[in-house]
Amino acid sequence: MNLFEKHRPVFEKAQQTCATRACWSPYPDMPDKYPEAAQAKAAGLLAFEQHLQRGRFDLDQPGIHAWVGEEISPYTQAPLGMVYPQSDMDRLFDAAEHAMGSWALASITERIGVLMEVLEVIYRDHLFEVLHAVMHTAGQSYNMAYAGSGVNALDRSIEALVYAEQAMRSVTPSAVWQRRFGSAEIQLQKTYRLVPRGTAVCFSCASFPTWNAWPSMMASLATGNPVILKPHPATVLPMAITVKAFRQVLQSRGFDPNLVTLAIDTSSEPIGKLLIQHPKTAIVDFTGSVRFGQWVEKNAHPALAFTETAGCNTVVLESSDDLDAALRNLATTLCLFSAQMCTSPQNIYVPKAGVQTPQGLVPFAEVAQRLAHAVQALTSDPKKAAMILATIQSPQTLALLQDMQAQGQQRGKVLLAPTAYVHPQFPNARTSTPLMLQVSTQERDLYAEERFGPISFVIACDDVQDALQHATHDARTQGGLTAFLYSTREDFIAQAEAAYARAGAQLTINLLGAMPLNFAAAYSDYHVTGLNPAGNATLTNLAFVAGRFGIVQSRRPVTQSTETTP
Amino acid sequence: MNLFEKHRPVFEKAQQTCATRACWSPYPDMPDKYPEAAQAKAAGLLAFEQHLQRGRFDLDQPGIHAWVGEEISPYTQAPLGMVYPQSDMDRLFDAAEHAMGSWALASITERIGVLMEVLEVIYRDHLFEVLHAVMHTAGQSYNMAYAGSGVNALDRSIEALVYAEQAMRSVTPSAVWQRRFGSAEIQLQKTYRLVPRGTAVCFSCASFPTWNAWPSMMASLATGNPVILKPHPATVLPMAITVKAFRQVLQSRGFDPNLVTLAIDTSSEPIGKLLIQHPKTAIVDFTGSVRFGQWVEKNAHPALAFTETAGCNTVVLESSDDLDAALRNLATTLCLFSAQMCTSPQNIYVPKAGVQTPQGLVPFAEVAQRLAHAVQALTSDPKKAAMILATIQSPQTLALLQDMQAQGQQRGKVLLAPTAYVHPQFPNARTSTPLMLQVSTQERDLYAEERFGPISFVIACDDVQDALQHATHDARTQGGLTAFLYSTREDFIAQAEAAYARAGAQLTINLLGAMPLNFAAAYSDYHVTGLNPAGNATLTNLAFVAGRFGIVQSRRPVTQSTETTP
Repeated sequence: MNLFEKHRPVFEKAQQTCATRACWSPYPDMPDKYPEAAQAKAAGLLAFEQHLQRGRFDLDQPGIHAWVGEEISPYTQAPLGMVYPQSDMDRLFDAAEHAMGSWALASITERIGVLMEVLEVIYRDHLFEVLHAVMHTAGQSYNMAYAGSGVNALDRSIEALVYAEQAMRSVTPSAVWQRRFGSAEIQLQKTYRLVPRGTAVCFSCASFPTWNAWPSMMASLATGNPVILKPHPATVLPMAITVKAFRQVLQSRGFDPNLVTLAIDTSSEPIGKLLIQHPKTAIVDFTGSVRFGQWVEKNAHPALAFTETAGCNTVVLESSDDLDAALRNLATTLCLFSAQMCTSPQNIYVPKAGVQTPQGLVPFAEVAQRLAHAVQALTSDPKKAAMILATIQSPQTLALLQDMQAQGQQRGKVLLAPTAYVHPQFPNARTSTPLMLQVSTQERDLYAEERFGPISFVIACDDVQDALQHATHDARTQGGLTAFLYSTREDFIAQAEAAYARAGAQLTINLLGAMPLNFAAAYSDYHVTGLNPAGNATLTNLAFVAGRFGIVQSRRPVTQSTETTP
Repeated sequence: MNLFEKHRPVFEKAQQTCATRACWSPYPDMPDKYPEAAQAKAAGLLAFEQHLQRGRFDLDQPGIHAWVGEEISPYTQAPLGMVYPQSDMDRLFDAAEHAMGSWALASITERIGVLMEVLEVIYRDHLFEVLHAVMHTAGQSYNMAYAGSGVNALDRSIEALVYAEQAMRSVTPSAVWQRRFGSAEIQLQKTYRLVPRGTAVCFSCASFPTWNAWPSMMASLATGNPVILKPHPATVLPMAITVKAFRQVLQSRGFDPNLVTLAIDTSSEPIGKLLIQHPKTAIVDFTGSVRFGQWVEKNAHPALAFTETAGCNTVVLESSDDLDAALRNLATTLCLFSAQMCTSPQNIYVPKAGVQTPQGLVPFAEVAQRLAHAVQALTSDPKKAAMILATIQSPQTLALLQDMQAQGQQRGKVLLAPTAYVHPQFPNARTSTPLMLQVSTQERDLYAEERFGPISFVIACDDVQDALQHATHDARTQGGLTAFLYSTREDFIAQAEAAYARAGAQLTINLLGAMPLNFAAAYSDYHVTGLNPAGNATLTNLAFVAGRFGIVQSRRPVTQSTETTP
């Protein structure tokens, strides 16, 4: 049985789900539901520990001239001690170009079959190994590393394959075309080839390495392009494991493993700009900072650039039937992975008169206070804090927290001051409870950009219109991926939906209960609209894949010989 | 009956044809087959003459501050005397943004119905008027202005609507999503809105104004975006007629006519760069020179840019069963509209040993000579010349012909010297027969860029491999839209198909007979691959339309009230 046939049931179910946008995943959503979980968990931990013991991550890719690595575990604040092969850049591009030849000639189903197999191998053999690698580089909690960096990233990868297949299938491979010109009948046999654009450079980020990178790699590879993966130097191991898995499956199926290689750099000698402006770069997928993302968009030409950066995600609190529940949900989302997610909210706009509830108007200051209490309640117990906050990925975030607290003290009110909490399993973990500031709209320069980490602002507005105006302005001008609204007024909800649609932010309304507000479901939620500065690409839709290949035709008169060609 | 229902049969047939890529058009392919042709032709001519009599082209668009125009008819070399309203740029963008509101909220079928109606109105009421406007600005022949700038451009417009509809339909408008989180069941109602990216600026070119501009306008408008049309100052009238037709149909259907406006400039005060870098420009469609096209691609950010420029289209002559027929076909294509088409060949590579035929090897010099004779045969009779060569659009082309002839004389051999021919109906027409030069590959700097106009090079190569290598190198590095091959060797054909596929040029093989070699059939031939410098966009495919809108979702818990919402 060929690989596409093997994976066909899952792929077809994914195709249906991308159309209906209902809930589905072929993967168990919690670690304990993984088949033979205890054994798999132990094996994954062992594989991770063996990496650290070896210290050297072997990859048989061409042009290796150095071994570098600088990862530090946010859980131990000690170096991982890992080094990775650094290859000569031109050698990687040459090898990628060479590898592309036979891959580009493979059929659509052949490529998709192999890529589905890569996902199965990652899921079956590397999921818990990746989990620990993500924990000790990105600093995520165990459960988030399983879900957000594991199975959800795999789901998003399948989703990318579905759209790639859809875009490629919209081009018929051949046609017979016949027309009369004057008195003559011309009959042409036409062949339409899908030609990959060329080598893709995929940047993975420090805090969520796999989530965008895996689907981006799939989008490029499915359409025939090789991928050079450039991980953030702080978070290499999960991506090195990934690259190795891709290479092994590709090679075992008779393809050139150099379709996927690793390009590693250090924070003192970054190679990102060189990669992007390399003459052989045809596609750039970038996840990372707003500043570099904008540089990518401006300077990638003639390469295609797909970016997801970040933004000022906003909340508008107008009214609620259950304010406490709403504040609990908001608090959870403000804490989740210490708000180091591109979907975490930052700016919470509240009318200064307060928020309407069945119990009457709750004044602004009380709303702010109750939200701060809700956050505190989630983080005061170290065991609970560890599960929800996890760690702080970068020491720079701790410095920013200090700076923001100092500025907030002067210019507003500190609702909640950040403190380190002691992680029950990792006493040396880099941690912080959230900083919450209460400010007026006069302090716009403080909050009108992404402040990465557990930093949020409760902002007093003139009224709900002013709140909505400020919130959507943030999204439109500073970028915004998600937005959150609590309102019992259908007219205001409709107005907010229209305003956020124009601002290009994905809106969640009146959500209470167990689901994290910023949870993004594969096959159902679109991530990034491309309509504001938070990125130019939606993961995943047709626009994300359709430009990764060109259509080249040849045509010739139908003759005896071409007629009998299948 | 709504407009979509009215046009559904044609639209559905177009959808089928885009899938099968067979031959079809709802329009008659020759002027004489147009319904009540004589009357329509006379009415079209009259409408054109009335424009000239009025001299002033009225458009009720906002912010008009001047009236400008500098068109000169290539058929009379006299000014048309037409002036057009020049509007304040900011006013056009503001009006476009305002107009977008209700248009964006219209349903997909509503927008497509209105746009199909626009095409019907152009076809029914303005086709021959546009024809004369194209003749007396672009300088095309009557038949080409009918087909290439008329019905074929309409076909390509429908094709753009088909792909726009396909991309939009791939997004479901709503979903119900349900998942268990812990012990709780979360059920969300999700709404997916298609949000237009924003105002599009569409540049039309001097020699083929409608052919790319109409489908580009359709791609933007179908996906909800307004269009500001910026015509080349030499070729305004066909586009002014177009803009007026769009505006009238939009207004008659209750939409804001400022969805389509005209931005005119003069050659002494160009506004192209200002338009592209206007902060409200969200999309740029550009057809024109390579140089400006590359500037557009580099500088349009954050606007999306779709370009079609030009390139060095190549021919490889290896062998032929009927060399005379092959040379006749090549000669016709070298003459068609004086090679002022982006699909016209320029560089003809021939092995210096000669071309294999059933009669034996025909030496290189004889091939070059016989091709020159074939061109001469087509152009020596003024009546025939008028039909095929038509006129020279720009005086700059005449200057280039002189310059190239002088250089060719020094560095190679002039196979055919250009001379003006006297057009039988327009004795003052700007005309020239083609210049043909014979050179070696040493003179690469002479031919390795687009030399716009009736200029071609017959280039002596070491052998067929050398010929193919040079030809595909031209396409890859200088851009190439079309390519032409004559060979009886299936192994060489397969090699050339692969090489041109990598170079991104559309290849026509061994075509003999009545069809012009560079004829591009709507619904069947893809134009531009995006894989070489001749442009980054294919007209038309999914990639051409899918980025023109974003997907913005809102989601909220399913409740009694949302459940009953349709």
